[in-house]
Amino acid sequence: MTRYVYPFEAALPARDPKELLGGKGAGLNVMTALGIPVPPGFTLTTDVSAAKSATGRYPDGLEAEVKVALEGVELRVGRKFGAADNPLLVSVRSGARVSMPGMMDTILNLGLNDETVEGLAGRSGDRRFAFDAYRRLLQMYGDVVLGVDHHHFEEILGGLKKELGDPTVLDSQLTADALEELVKRYKALLEREGKPFPQDVNVQLWDAIGAVFESWDNPRAVRYRKMQGISSDWGTACTVQAMVFGNLGETSGSGVAFTRNPSTGERVLYGEYLANAQGEDVVAGIRTPLPLTAEAAPPGREHETLERKMPEVFAELADLAAQLERHYGDMQDIELTVEEGRVYILQTRTGKRTAHAAIRIAVDLVREGALTREQALSKIDPSSLEQLLHARLPTPDELAAKGITALAVGLPASPGAAVGQIVFDADEAERLAAEGKDVLLVRRETSPEDIHGMKAARGIVTATGGMTSHAAVVARGLGKCCVAGVGALNVDYATQTLSLRTPSGEPKVFAKGAVLSLDGTHGRVYEGALDVVAAAKVPELDEVMRWADDVRAMKVRANADTPRDARRARAFGAEGIGLCRTEHMFFAEERLEAVRCMVLARTEEEREAWLEKIEPMQRGDFAAMLEEMDGLPVTVRLLDWPLHEFLPREEREFEHVARALGAPVEVVRQRAAQLHEVNPMLGYRAVRVGLTIPAIYRMQVRALLAAALDRQEAGGDPKPEIMIPVVGLESELARMKSIVTEEAERLFAARGGRVHYEYGTMIELPRACLVADRLAESAEFFSFGTNDLTQTTFGLSRDDAAHFLPAYVDGGIVPEDPFVRLDEAGVGALVALACEKGRATRPGISLGLCGEHGGDPRSVAFCAKLGLSYVSCSPPRLPIARLAAAQAELRLRPVG
Amino acid sequence: MTRYVYPFEAALPARDPKELLGGKGAGLNVMTALGIPVPPGFTLTTDVSAAKSATGRYPDGLEAEVKVALEGVELRVGRKFGAADNPLLVSVRSGARVSMPGMMDTILNLGLNDETVEGLAGRSGDRRFAFDAYRRLLQMYGDVVLGVDHHHFEEILGGLKKELGDPTVLDSQLTADALEELVKRYKALLEREGKPFPQDVNVQLWDAIGAVFESWDNPRAVRYRKMQGISSDWGTACTVQAMVFGNLGETSGSGVAFTRNPSTGERVLYGEYLANAQGEDVVAGIRTPLPLTAEAAPPGREHETLERKMPEVFAELADLAAQLERHYGDMQDIELTVEEGRVYILQTRTGKRTAHAAIRIAVDLVREGALTREQALSKIDPSSLEQLLHARLPTPDELAAKGITALAVGLPASPGAAVGQIVFDADEAERLAAEGKDVLLVRRETSPEDIHGMKAARGIVTATGGMTSHAAVVARGLGKCCVAGVGALNVDYATQTLSLRTPSGEPKVFAKGAVLSLDGTHGRVYEGALDVVAAAKVPELDEVMRWADDVRAMKVRANADTPRDARRARAFGAEGIGLCRTEHMFFAEERLEAVRCMVLARTEEEREAWLEKIEPMQRGDFAAMLEEMDGLPVTVRLLDWPLHEFLPREEREFEHVARALGAPVEVVRQRAAQLHEVNPMLGYRAVRVGLTIPAIYRMQVRALLAAALDRQEAGGDPKPEIMIPVVGLESELARMKSIVTEEAERLFAARGGRVHYEYGTMIELPRACLVADRLAESAEFFSFGTNDLTQTTFGLSRDDAAHFLPAYVDGGIVPEDPFVRLDEAGVGALVALACEKGRATRPGISLGLCGEHGGDPRSVAFCAKLGLSYVSCSPPRLPIARLAAAQAELRLRPVG
Repeated sequence: MTRYVYPFEAALPARDPKELLGGKGAGLNVMTALGIPVPPGFTLTTDVSAAKSATGRYPDGLEAEVKVALEGVELRVGRKFGAADNPLLVSVRSGARVSMPGMMDTILNLGLNDETVEGLAGRSGDRRFAFDAYRRLLQMYGDVVLGVDHHHFEEILGGLKKELGDPTVLDSQLTADALEELVKRYKALLEREGKPFPQDVNVQLWDAIGAVFESWDNPRAVRYRKMQGISSDWGTACTVQAMVFGNLGETSGSGVAFTRNPSTGERVLYGEYLANAQGEDVVAGIRTPLPLTAEAAPPGREHETLERKMPEVFAELADLAAQLERHYGDMQDIELTVEEGRVYILQTRTGKRTAHAAIRIAVDLVREGALTREQALSKIDPSSLEQLLHARLPTPDELAAKGITALAVGLPASPGAAVGQIVFDADEAERLAAEGKDVLLVRRETSPEDIHGMKAARGIVTATGGMTSHAAVVARGLGKCCVAGVGALNVDYATQTLSLRTPSGEPKVFAKGAVLSLDGTHGRVYEGALDVVAAAKVPELDEVMRWADDVRAMKVRANADTPRDARRARAFGAEGIGLCRTEHMFFAEERLEAVRCMVLARTEEEREAWLEKIEPMQRGDFAAMLEEMDGLPVTVRLLDWPLHEFLPREEREFEHVARALGAPVEVVRQRAAQLHEVNPMLGYRAVRVGLTIPAIYRMQVRALLAAALDRQEAGGDPKPEIMIPVVGLESELARMKSIVTEEAERLFAARGGRVHYEYGTMIELPRACLVADRLAESAEFFSFGTNDLTQTTFGLSRDDAAHFLPAYVDGGIVPEDPFVRLDEAGVGALVALACEKGRATRPGISLGLCGEHGGDPRSVAFCAKLGLSYVSCSPPRLPIARLAAAQAELRLRPVG
Repeated sequence: MTRYVYPFEAALPARDPKELLGGKGAGLNVMTALGIPVPPGFTLTTDVSAAKSATGRYPDGLEAEVKVALEGVELRVGRKFGAADNPLLVSVRSGARVSMPGMMDTILNLGLNDETVEGLAGRSGDRRFAFDAYRRLLQMYGDVVLGVDHHHFEEILGGLKKELGDPTVLDSQLTADALEELVKRYKALLEREGKPFPQDVNVQLWDAIGAVFESWDNPRAVRYRKMQGISSDWGTACTVQAMVFGNLGETSGSGVAFTRNPSTGERVLYGEYLANAQGEDVVAGIRTPLPLTAEAAPPGREHETLERKMPEVFAELADLAAQLERHYGDMQDIELTVEEGRVYILQTRTGKRTAHAAIRIAVDLVREGALTREQALSKIDPSSLEQLLHARLPTPDELAAKGITALAVGLPASPGAAVGQIVFDADEAERLAAEGKDVLLVRRETSPEDIHGMKAARGIVTATGGMTSHAAVVARGLGKCCVAGVGALNVDYATQTLSLRTPSGEPKVFAKGAVLSLDGTHGRVYEGALDVVAAAKVPELDEVMRWADDVRAMKVRANADTPRDARRARAFGAEGIGLCRTEHMFFAEERLEAVRCMVLARTEEEREAWLEKIEPMQRGDFAAMLEEMDGLPVTVRLLDWPLHEFLPREEREFEHVARALGAPVEVVRQRAAQLHEVNPMLGYRAVRVGLTIPAIYRMQVRALLAAALDRQEAGGDPKPEIMIPVVGLESELARMKSIVTEEAERLFAARGGRVHYEYGTMIELPRACLVADRLAESAEFFSFGTNDLTQTTFGLSRDDAAHFLPAYVDGGIVPEDPFVRLDEAGVGALVALACEKGRATRPGISLGLCGEHGGDPRSVAFCAKLGLSYVSCSPPRLPIARLAAAQAELRLRPVG
């Protein structure tokens, strides 16, 4: 027969305790088993919830089981539920398998009625305390069980305070008589509403249990579950527990304790305690709690701390904390109540912590022998390491909690944070920066003429342009924070102002010199100067990374376009470059004109001539990259972008190019206009340009392989890989392979030497995934470009998504931004298919991922599950990827 | 033991004869078996080719087999190979499984040498004939077998003619002596080149056979196979056949005969004949052949025709033709030679014909009892029906054959052809058309202000804009030919000129009034007035369509946006509307301003007010559609396009909208600018707008269902289907379903009546295919929008593909434009997956296709194979779809 009620001390069946008893019930059961002093109680299982949902009534025998369990509690506490002289009071709480904070209901102090309140007063010797508990019960019960809105209760309380002559008196200052009067009036209210308060404590108990189970289906909870992807079938458990009171005088109190300092990770008992108070009084913030330890107390108040005032209690608490930490193998966040000198633990859970603390605690726990390295690794949230990487603003959620919302939302084009006064001109940015001012450069869009201003600025904002716009690419290269494509911005150079309508519809105008704050990590612009949290250096990080490297099977590479990036990447542990984008090299200030002339050339010969000018520069770029990454693979993606990205925009630029080409400006403008595209993302780019104007890729191949030959001849160990982007057709890759091979062989013949290179493709179109078996006939490696693959699979331009994607995320239509976390059901299914097909044709094929997902821990875990050879991400995110890969490996290991 | 040589009269093993003997060898074998007079011969099988490729030598025993077969030929002909007195001459030809015209080599007249030429001269009594044959052999053998380039021979011939005093004399006018001298000089040339002509006829034979087998791997053939997807493993067969000669005097001759008239389908022997000539003389065009029959001959020359001159021969030919047609069950194209009063058939194949003829022949063959309806159906090429649908230009290939190439290539935005003088202004177009002139309206892009000019013009050309631009949509609605997005065009309104650079790089300028021709079916612009072939009405088509409808299992629907389209669709046999695009309704001239105001409204209330103005118009549109399609389903796609497609562009338009909205122009302009997108194809459109501004879809749902209710109350049978476009996420479709349901229920409650409707989605994103099982939870039907699905799967914007897609098709990188023929390996794989997943969730789910592929026969066949419920295409293409669906069904039927 199914058992529906488990006392905390009961042995459990072989089933996930959280599934059966909810998180809270399971925790109390564990603590009881450990001998931790927990107020006794019992839990009605989630099966009860399921049965009630399905049949509309409780399962047979439940009432009897509850009765027996309650008698057990009475025995342990030595009080009786509903007994007039020494009444047992209980709480009734919900508790699902996962925490759903604040979503479901709780009722405290059940068991009080007109009779037992007197017994409580007598036993505690505190009439005020007893009636305070009673009036709280009446309000909570009235609201939750009887459905009488709490504002009715507030009105009565307000009225009474006015009658007593002081409407501003605090609740805690009300006398016993006043509270007794309040109880009377509350009962009258419920009577009037046709819902009298039941004096029968068993009615109270069962109605409360019913309300808790029903609260699983309240609209708030249903909505929350939908957003969090929690199944409605799980149901909630219901825990009934004896009340303990921290407000029974100076030897009582309530507090919170962390087993280690959650900011620094230091091994000290850390927390707060408030004497003669219930938990909710601490939360209400009317009186300020003191630190638990004398060391942490404000000077002169050391003697008031729990450590000094009740040293035995403190010592016991420290023991309990250590015991709980040992059991759970992690730092705990503990709720406690002291009732007349006895410590009770009400709840324990793994404590939240800063990234800094997380690393230190993990290392310490291993040193203390409490955890193995593998166990310690899995305790660190990889995404928290983001905090250590860049200077940053508080997250949008953290700011929202303080009532600060963004002026405008744009694309997170280059991570980090910046605060400064706005300027609209690159020269002015440079001048003010030279004077020591912090400036933000605001442009409609940037062009190579702005680079000196971008270098001088703290951060960059643009009104148009996407993740691969000039502003975004250059800012990432410079390591500057950038928010791009802020559609709401109107930049007026004439008046040197910036105007916008905030998300709430308010119009705002900022003149030159106004101070804004940028969050490049989340793509937010804020008014005024917000506090920037600096990037931290945590000494223990290196040790954690070494453990991670020992564990993980999947390699990590970096996306790096410059020698500077490559150097950083090596420092962060990169095992190669997974993506070297050559556009950045084309965008460089001093060569852009040659590039433009090459694009706009009227004949093949003219184009070749310009390419010849560019070739030595490219060769120099590649030489430097290969030197930084000596002995490690460097995947060079040949030109990816639409040619028109490189076109002149301003009159002056057209004139320069026309002069260089010796052609009329009008002709140059016409050619440029012909390269205009409706949907450049889906246009004339990458291999499509490579095949129709092969001279460009030929030049890049020569430059790379010549640099590699140079390096090899100088005794180095270059490992170049040539990657063809935006391939959708098997014949594109095969044709391009013959071009690359021909160019390579011609070079090798001319040089009288060879260098090994690999040939492969970036997989970034759905069709490429579908024909990956045929692509693998030419490709020695695949690298999944999941940014573009997400765009094409969803039919969703990242640059344009701001019109609706935020609304989709807020409304739960997508659980998360698919550009942040790899969409497993769609994009992931294509990646998996391509892996399978690629391996079928070429069993040892190297498979990597080089989209931004390579720095997202959940996406990294997905890659590990697919058995990818490596992920590649931006250099500062390498620690995240290394840790995430290690954790994924640990999860994939067979149990035992 | 494998047999390598088959005489024409030999019985064949149980194996595809074409695979074994090549197409030509198999045909000769069949004809011989039928008792058709074929010059005797034998075929070396494709296995010989394979063996030689693999091992570098001929299989054992081959020589002996050839010897025996050759002796058989000698016996039949009564001549001996290499015999001085009565020599047998043979031809050696290649022949693969499929025809590879002109790709491989042929040698005629083998068996001649210095001795046998005299024998031939003696036996024929025509020395000139004999030496003419010999010199032809020397040149052909020299070129093909010995590798001496034919220009050497041309030089010698030219020199000789000069010596003879008349360099312009025709070959056929050379005397026997001159030809004898030429033979001498040719032999001397080969001697000089170190490759003397072998006098041993067996050496000639084996070298010729070797050359034929090697020609399988010549670069031309390799390239052709690659382009056509022909496997290199197939190899070629080699046919050796006795020569017959049509140039042995007036009782000899050569000709071509069709068993029916290939233009009209009429049942007459149709063809041409040239007395005293070889087949190649007919081709060379030096003398003009006469029609075969007196009836077809030019007046006064009836007596010269074969029919009159050699009535017995003609009668025999007519019998043979009838026999061949009966055997093959289709009209034949026959090559014949008459040698001294004896008819020989050299080759027969299924004859090419016009669409008109194809239909008539099919119907006649059924009436004659030669074919069943099913057999007849499969003889008609569905794509040829295109010829009957619109006025048209010759195809680009046909024009290229005449040396006419397009000035510029654009998008085939609306099919048909138009010739006229160009104008750049809508008013002028209207004025000139009123004067009876044919005009073409040329615009950078069109806007609703141009509609009167578009109506007046014969055709429309735009420089920018894609398949869904204003110009394209309106032109299709008007049934006007349109070439859109011709990137090469520079339209200068100031000078009223059009300038461009042709594909070959030549600059051209056309002023107002210049005459151009448009091919809207292929997206081409031509200089001058080309001949337009009018659309034809073929009475037999209806009968063929009835047969097709009896056979096919898959339904056909039409893409129709207007009541006029719907009416045409019914006339063409539509069984419903598969795609009613509501954008067209929004673009209508008189309501565009209301639509613009709705898009640019600043508040929800303002937007609702404008939607209220639009609603009755929409309702009227839908009422008319439902009336036309009473009793048949009408799938209405809710608004698909980016909102910004509806935005004002010109100053005047902004002012109008600002006035209507009561807002400053600047504010309107700002809002419009905020709706600008980098990649509109992947942007804020369709369901994304539907979910974030639900008022628009709500209005459309109300308008459709109210119209349906009206119709139902009036006794009609409306079958509305609501289709949500651009869905990628299961939650999008589910959310939208609750909105649609809510709106429908509210309407039904208000009206006190219900109407049945279906809810489904257009599948046009790869992600939708991958999660189709989840979409099918909400969707009662899927309709594959393969235009957009092709764009996203390939990452290829149709509007921008002109930069490289033509080069891809020409270069064989894609076998065909994937927007014309559904790409089975990529897009097709996604469609198949979505079908499977959709059916798994909802077994009876209706599955249709509504992209333009619905009118492409091969794509229709693919849909039938997947078991789709229907395809939907533009009304005039319905006959193509109906026939293609029937053919697909026949192919899918189990054999027997």
